[in-house]
Amino acid sequence: MKKIYNEDTIDKIGEEVELFGWVQNIRDHKKIVFVDLRDRTGIVQVVGDEKFRKLSPEDVISVKGVVKERPKNLVNPKLMSKDDLNVTLPTLLDYRALTLRHPKVRAIFEVQEVVIDSFRKTMKEFGFVEFQAPLIVPSKTEGGAEVFAVKYFHYDVYLGQSPQLYKQIMLGAFEKVFTVTRAFRAEPSVTTRHLTEYISLDAEMAFIDSWQEILEAVEALIRKIMETVEESCKEQLRMYNAKVPKVSKKIPQLKLKEAQELIYKRTKRDIRGEPDLSPTDEEEICKWVFEEKSSEFVFITHYPLEKRPFYTHPDPKDPNHTLSFDLLCRGLEWVTGGQRINDYNHLVENIKKWGDAPYDFELYLQAFRFGMPPEGGFCLGAERITEKILGLANVREASLFPRDMERVDVGRAKNNLELRVKNYELN
Amino acid sequence: MKKIYNEDTIDKIGEEVELFGWVQNIRDHKKIVFVDLRDRTGIVQVVGDEKFRKLSPEDVISVKGVVKERPKNLVNPKLMSKDDLNVTLPTLLDYRALTLRHPKVRAIFEVQEVVIDSFRKTMKEFGFVEFQAPLIVPSKTEGGAEVFAVKYFHYDVYLGQSPQLYKQIMLGAFEKVFTVTRAFRAEPSVTTRHLTEYISLDAEMAFIDSWQEILEAVEALIRKIMETVEESCKEQLRMYNAKVPKVSKKIPQLKLKEAQELIYKRTKRDIRGEPDLSPTDEEEICKWVFEEKSSEFVFITHYPLEKRPFYTHPDPKDPNHTLSFDLLCRGLEWVTGGQRINDYNHLVENIKKWGDAPYDFELYLQAFRFGMPPEGGFCLGAERITEKILGLANVREASLFPRDMERVDVGRAKNNLELRVKNYELN
Repeated sequence: MKKIYNEDTIDKIGEEVELFGWVQNIRDHKKIVFVDLRDRTGIVQVVGDEKFRKLSPEDVISVKGVVKERPKNLVNPKLMSKDDLNVTLPTLLDYRALTLRHPKVRAIFEVQEVVIDSFRKTMKEFGFVEFQAPLIVPSKTEGGAEVFAVKYFHYDVYLGQSPQLYKQIMLGAFEKVFTVTRAFRAEPSVTTRHLTEYISLDAEMAFIDSWQEILEAVEALIRKIMETVEESCKEQLRMYNAKVPKVSKKIPQLKLKEAQELIYKRTKRDIRGEPDLSPTDEEEICKWVFEEKSSEFVFITHYPLEKRPFYTHPDPKDPNHTLSFDLLCRGLEWVTGGQRINDYNHLVENIKKWGDAPYDFELYLQAFRFGMPPEGGFCLGAERITEKILGLANVREASLFPRDMERVDVGRAKNNLELRVKNYELN
Repeated sequence: MKKIYNEDTIDKIGEEVELFGWVQNIRDHKKIVFVDLRDRTGIVQVVGDEKFRKLSPEDVISVKGVVKERPKNLVNPKLMSKDDLNVTLPTLLDYRALTLRHPKVRAIFEVQEVVIDSFRKTMKEFGFVEFQAPLIVPSKTEGGAEVFAVKYFHYDVYLGQSPQLYKQIMLGAFEKVFTVTRAFRAEPSVTTRHLTEYISLDAEMAFIDSWQEILEAVEALIRKIMETVEESCKEQLRMYNAKVPKVSKKIPQLKLKEAQELIYKRTKRDIRGEPDLSPTDEEEICKWVFEEKSSEFVFITHYPLEKRPFYTHPDPKDPNHTLSFDLLCRGLEWVTGGQRINDYNHLVENIKKWGDAPYDFELYLQAFRFGMPPEGGFCLGAERITEKILGLANVREASLFPRDMERVDVGRAKNNLELRVKNYELN
């Protein structure tokens, strides 16, 4: 087993070491050949003779030699990240097994794991219990046609659009729960914000007195995640020249209606009465909250009943609107959540109203048929958070192996036949 | 928000508190009515008057009152778990939303989360990096027909049988990786050991000198998980009268052939030459290793080429057998792993030999087309480990929402129509 990493050579100057890694590049100066040897911790320059000429980039090698300090005038603290990866998005993804090896690409997923870890750690500190949600499910939870069917023996089942129903069932045993899971949406369009498979960070809490307690939990969580990323990902943030968004002392809240009024006042675009905000609207509201409230986050609340799933709790004071919210940051929805209906009959009625069969929701309804306390919860998309922290242009860059309607690993479109012919002669 | 849990009342004797929870049961003594109030931390007996008679089991209530110490002669330290849940497996699972609330059922999943957490923590200590594997995949990784197809726009895709290929791709960037993920197997049979969806704890390591380093990593990991469960789950183990399996100083290793010889000698059943061990064989070998080597774990190694997936490294000394292993404990396979082929041409050849199209493995092959070091890895099934630690009879008991060919949430068989009629009058 490999004993030391490249970064450990700093403490071994003058000693003989054996290093293992990949050839990053080769510079041939006739008698002397330089090889940049890469491993997961960095690059070491290896000085060798003509034999090194036989090497190619990405060859795996081991070398033995004495560690020398780099002459002070040649030290380049940005060596690891000086090269940008100037490729188009399809190339970046069609060659993912290679592009992942680039330190700047690797950095994205280092940040993502810090976000996920920090979510897990914080939820535990808040007294939430982790569980594993099932992904093959008997029902459509979020409504709509955006669901993938699975050929499952002779039954109709789907890939879970969210762990929503299972989070709620779990409350009966654990009161406060969270899960790091996968959610699937059969989005029939290709946008910069959507993936068909994404990492969902989900939480649910029972015995709330007010739905504001859910927003408070989100605020405390986001504050903690941002602090952790800022502290643990200094080098990665530097590579992207990125700053973690600031969480103001109290995140401002706007009702959807108020947000629409504001947009009308600022831009004269009249979207009052629309059931939701468009991407342009979300950008405008984020601009407003930054300019007027010095905050990069804003809660939009009270979406209309028609735009939210069947389990969303109506606002008792205004039953056509719901106790629901989105948290926006840098023009994108980061978190969505709200209070849920905890009355059995109301849920059965809504499932029918949404055109589904209550029997497909049997385990879920069971949890409410007896007793369930007032409750609510929320979910975060790990890719979107990573994207927006680093200022990436497309959510796909923040997914290790992004899936959309035209891509599962390599692009599935016809013109990728080229790749197929080249590599396998159409075998 | 609920401020204190039932267990906190121990420190509040003589104080007035407000408790929130579920009615476990009601004992009516005319003027006095006793209610056992349950929350996630335990049960508190509440003494009330006739008004309590209106309550039903599983009602959610809050009560205010003064905390009194239980008279010493009535203290029952096993109160939480004295009631067993005497129901059949189909009932246990068809009423999962309710049965989960039973402390003894809840305990199973508390143990499972300790297993998963301990896996994560230990792999990080060993220098492995966590990543999120995709679940919608373009290829069958483990061969065979045991794969679920997903209706995915106009492409043929599947649910991942394992994160194998992605673990290997990730090595190029991170050298040592792990993932807590889901694996899907379209097992067409209903046994006590199989689920169609299970929690896979997966790891992969590059730059190995010998495949024995993989077995060493497994041994150290299992030792750590067992120690952690023993230390953190005392109450849960007591409920099940269970003992964590002992990991001997060095886990014995047997080649498959040697195991078969042993079974023949001990039982006169001649299974020599079979390509794999049957469940009965696995039980016999576990018996042997316990009796003869005082170990509850045993590695079986060198399975024949034909029984292992295309990526398995052949044994250079005996190319019809592989550098692969299973770790058995208490009659069941807990871990499977081995060294992988890291030569591009060999992989392409094998994919064709297994009847698949290399193009469907493009990203994977890309990782090897340039350079990939010697490497290997392993995976653990979280449900099986939980099952065997607690001595459960069926792996389904160790899955929160088990899926098999006849069950997704509630049983899908025709006779469950009864439940449907009863609850929804066939709406």
